[in-house]
Amino acid sequence: MNETRALTTYIAHFIDELVHDGVQDVVISPGSRSTPMALLMAEHPNMNVYIQIDERSAAFFALGMAKAKQKPVALLCTSGTAAANYFPAIVEAHYSRVPLIVLTADRPHELREVGAPQAINQIGLYGSHVKWFTDMALPEEDKRMIRYARTSAARSVQICTQSPKGPVHLNFPFREPLIPDYEGIFEKISQKISPITIDNGTYHLSDQWFHQFAENLNGLKRGLIICGAIESNSFAKGIVQLANKLQFPILADPLSQLRSGTHDKTMIVDSYDAFLRSEVIQAELEFDVVLRFGAMPVSKALLKFLRKHRDALHYVVDDGGGWRDPEHLVDEMITCDASDFCASLQSYLPTPAKQNDWMKKWLMVNEKAKKVMTSIHEMDDLDESKIFALLQDVLPEKSALFVGNSMPIRDIDSFFMVNDKEIKIMANRGANGIDGLVSSAIGAAVYEKKLVLVLGDLSFFHDLNGLLAAKLNKINLTILVVNNNGGGIFSYLPQSSHPKHFELLFGTPADLDFSHAAALYGGSYHKVVDWIDFHQAMKNANDHNGLSIIEIPTNREKNVVAHRQLWTNVSQEIISLLEGGTF
Amino acid sequence: MNETRALTTYIAHFIDELVHDGVQDVVISPGSRSTPMALLMAEHPNMNVYIQIDERSAAFFALGMAKAKQKPVALLCTSGTAAANYFPAIVEAHYSRVPLIVLTADRPHELREVGAPQAINQIGLYGSHVKWFTDMALPEEDKRMIRYARTSAARSVQICTQSPKGPVHLNFPFREPLIPDYEGIFEKISQKISPITIDNGTYHLSDQWFHQFAENLNGLKRGLIICGAIESNSFAKGIVQLANKLQFPILADPLSQLRSGTHDKTMIVDSYDAFLRSEVIQAELEFDVVLRFGAMPVSKALLKFLRKHRDALHYVVDDGGGWRDPEHLVDEMITCDASDFCASLQSYLPTPAKQNDWMKKWLMVNEKAKKVMTSIHEMDDLDESKIFALLQDVLPEKSALFVGNSMPIRDIDSFFMVNDKEIKIMANRGANGIDGLVSSAIGAAVYEKKLVLVLGDLSFFHDLNGLLAAKLNKINLTILVVNNNGGGIFSYLPQSSHPKHFELLFGTPADLDFSHAAALYGGSYHKVVDWIDFHQAMKNANDHNGLSIIEIPTNREKNVVAHRQLWTNVSQEIISLLEGGTF
Repeated sequence: MNETRALTTYIAHFIDELVHDGVQDVVISPGSRSTPMALLMAEHPNMNVYIQIDERSAAFFALGMAKAKQKPVALLCTSGTAAANYFPAIVEAHYSRVPLIVLTADRPHELREVGAPQAINQIGLYGSHVKWFTDMALPEEDKRMIRYARTSAARSVQICTQSPKGPVHLNFPFREPLIPDYEGIFEKISQKISPITIDNGTYHLSDQWFHQFAENLNGLKRGLIICGAIESNSFAKGIVQLANKLQFPILADPLSQLRSGTHDKTMIVDSYDAFLRSEVIQAELEFDVVLRFGAMPVSKALLKFLRKHRDALHYVVDDGGGWRDPEHLVDEMITCDASDFCASLQSYLPTPAKQNDWMKKWLMVNEKAKKVMTSIHEMDDLDESKIFALLQDVLPEKSALFVGNSMPIRDIDSFFMVNDKEIKIMANRGANGIDGLVSSAIGAAVYEKKLVLVLGDLSFFHDLNGLLAAKLNKINLTILVVNNNGGGIFSYLPQSSHPKHFELLFGTPADLDFSHAAALYGGSYHKVVDWIDFHQAMKNANDHNGLSIIEIPTNREKNVVAHRQLWTNVSQEIISLLEGGTF
Repeated sequence: MNETRALTTYIAHFIDELVHDGVQDVVISPGSRSTPMALLMAEHPNMNVYIQIDERSAAFFALGMAKAKQKPVALLCTSGTAAANYFPAIVEAHYSRVPLIVLTADRPHELREVGAPQAINQIGLYGSHVKWFTDMALPEEDKRMIRYARTSAARSVQICTQSPKGPVHLNFPFREPLIPDYEGIFEKISQKISPITIDNGTYHLSDQWFHQFAENLNGLKRGLIICGAIESNSFAKGIVQLANKLQFPILADPLSQLRSGTHDKTMIVDSYDAFLRSEVIQAELEFDVVLRFGAMPVSKALLKFLRKHRDALHYVVDDGGGWRDPEHLVDEMITCDASDFCASLQSYLPTPAKQNDWMKKWLMVNEKAKKVMTSIHEMDDLDESKIFALLQDVLPEKSALFVGNSMPIRDIDSFFMVNDKEIKIMANRGANGIDGLVSSAIGAAVYEKKLVLVLGDLSFFHDLNGLLAAKLNKINLTILVVNNNGGGIFSYLPQSSHPKHFELLFGTPADLDFSHAAALYGGSYHKVVDWIDFHQAMKNANDHNGLSIIEIPTNREKNVVAHRQLWTNVSQEIISLLEGGTF
């Protein structure tokens, strides 16, 4: 039949072009309308098909995979609310700049908005949260339309991988019959392929510009380099060299990937979240200029410190995805690839400045804070800060840590300090949701062979369905559930002083025994009783194939008290040191 | 503080107006930015607060409640992807015309699109799938702004309850501090309230129009009344009277609510999905005119029958929500309240027509089909058709049945026949998704005290998180999981003849032992072994308080064979009868 031939050829070329342009992973959720694409993807020799039945989890699974691989991943679902379930992950991908190619099947035009089953308005379904939307033409097999199909695939890869990366959405109308004539189609079309190549440049500024910028910095001695979440394999080396030339300390967010690895870390300040909580200490560390890279850092203490210095010069280097400056501090917004920026600027700077007293003070305060925080290790009870402080010890070399939102990412920021292991730290910090974290980590674990996800009980509950992907696709990972039975972060917020409605609206204890969740999805499960047990459980999980779930019960109230006591100790000891006049 | 007073007063008035206009239920998901609204809703003496941590499930929970109550229900969540998780249920509410008031908290304008945490672009977040979107002003406390807050609440109720009903979205920017001064606020403002009243009319046509329409129908003897999903308590009585006057059979979809209840059912044809599968039978039952009410019926056999008769006059009566006519058969689209239509048209029709041979043939074919289908009851093995055929016996008086999508709603259509019990049949047939069904049913169970949800294993998996709402809010219901370990519907589709990729892409067996899900959420669990056990399990569940999960294992392949054999038997027996020349 001509229709089936047109359907087969058109979609096969589309898929073949995706593969040619580097899209070799697709997460498929079962459906009928998407059958042509699903069967042909399964048939393509170089396309890896992953299955997740829940589309919300499927999209986060693809997001995690794309994050770990730093390449676009495709998603495929049928028409209707299936597509709407992708929305949370698409929003996250948009703000965290992750390339996703979202493929939704649709009814043909004559069956739209006329009460046909499982048909919804999918035109522009994700609004401003995708970089590109296109409603594809119905399959046809003349040369021009085949080329259009290939071009659309290439273009989707181009757009989603251009800086800033992000999701794109292609909507495919399909008429029945939906079964393509898939057997041997890719050999058949292989003679007729003229693939398209995508070459994406990055944002770059001129030599003159760097020359001038280097002059602007000349004489500014009290400068901070601040690095938030950034995705670049060559950034660490470049920023360290730049910091050395400028003699500016680097305040490194855990997602900057600067706290772990083999690069030089003498200029890296990692405990600012602890010591910047004191206004007395803040006053000792005033600065004149900020060079900020990547997303906004996690630390609220740092944010408050920055906004107190509206008079300081504030430069932000961004790869062009928007205006990441919630406090409106920016004096100059620089759209430029961060690694390029470091390399270029360096070459215009004079020989390294001498370490000055101000710089020494920053580094000594940092050291002191870390020393005070070692007291965490003496805690006997299961406590949240200690879990995060221990992670750098218990994680193996060349591993990845996926960190949940709300408290875990803040605790990582506070307690995960510089180390020489190569530990990649990942999180969903585009929109900071507590949703989709299990799936994102499982997706990342496809490419990060030793991956540990650490998250809270509410986040774990939110994406329990995500666990099915580990089961269906046989993926190894360890999940560390910090279970304080509810929304731990609210205990730190003003809401906690309103007991009348607190537990109902904010604490929300769900009283879930997660051993049942582990049993449902075929994971191993262990509930930690003490710290020795915790070490053993992490070791066992590391040796275990498949899904390991380790639960650590903690207490919301005790946890707040312990955190606050620690911050008080850090401040007091540093203030004593500063008053002692060592500087 | 003035800011806190403004926040408190403005939001208290908004909530108070919602309650005044009949919105007394809200489903809240925990969050920080939404604190002002959450605390004040919890404080309002006449607002019922329900909690669900997963926003996707929360929105379906609200949808189910609104469906059962036939009144708007409010939803509240914090900023970010939380709001994006509402999307699937909002799409469903849009297409199934369910009134929802979606309240999302947002950052104030100066914190939007500048990298602030948990801030996404929430402007028009749900696109064309809400009836109204508004970005509210920041709280202020002067009289005009208080009146604006009340008006916005009233207006949201007006729009979502106007025919066609649907969801509305109000986005609230909140600045810190977020804690309102809630103690006693509703007594305080009660002196100053001048509430707004909403009076929504319905679509109505003139007497002349009905006079003319009655004349148009005059002399047309071979007419069908077709009733799809419709929500109207007075419709059954009106349509039965109209059918009697016209002597047209009523083809009643299960969601028309015409198959159960105490009304006269002599004109109701309930087994058309079985007997219209035969073209020979179709040819015997040709018609000249169709009067269709409500949504498109579930039956594909009926749809195919209708599209063979493009020459017949095709009238659709709709309450104004769009153009529900996927086969483009409509000759006249009538925007009018269905109950009004029946009452008005009747008064212009002459005394009842005499039952003619054509009408008799329809009713006899219907009876014969049902007689053949009684053979289902002789099946020994656990079989899907028999489950659905048994439901009308095992469900108690004045109960509700929530039916899952994909196969369950089709099986209800095929096997749930007319009866005098008052059984309300509910489903999510706006977009026909397999998502959100557990939550929708739990929401409906808030108002339907004896509710059974019947759904497949993939649907059950998709919304397992929904079960938390039953636990947290202490809701009683029975869930009947028809577990054929995968996507049963695909075995009926052409995909099933492609074994190469079938189980991977379509069958998708998840091999889940749902006893663990029951244990996780504190439900009772029973796996049925035979039909006696099934009856006993349904009885036990009916006597049990809380959540009861009953699983029936079935087999996808055997099921298709049994269904097809049955359809063949129905056709053969009817054809014999017709050839016997009884007519």
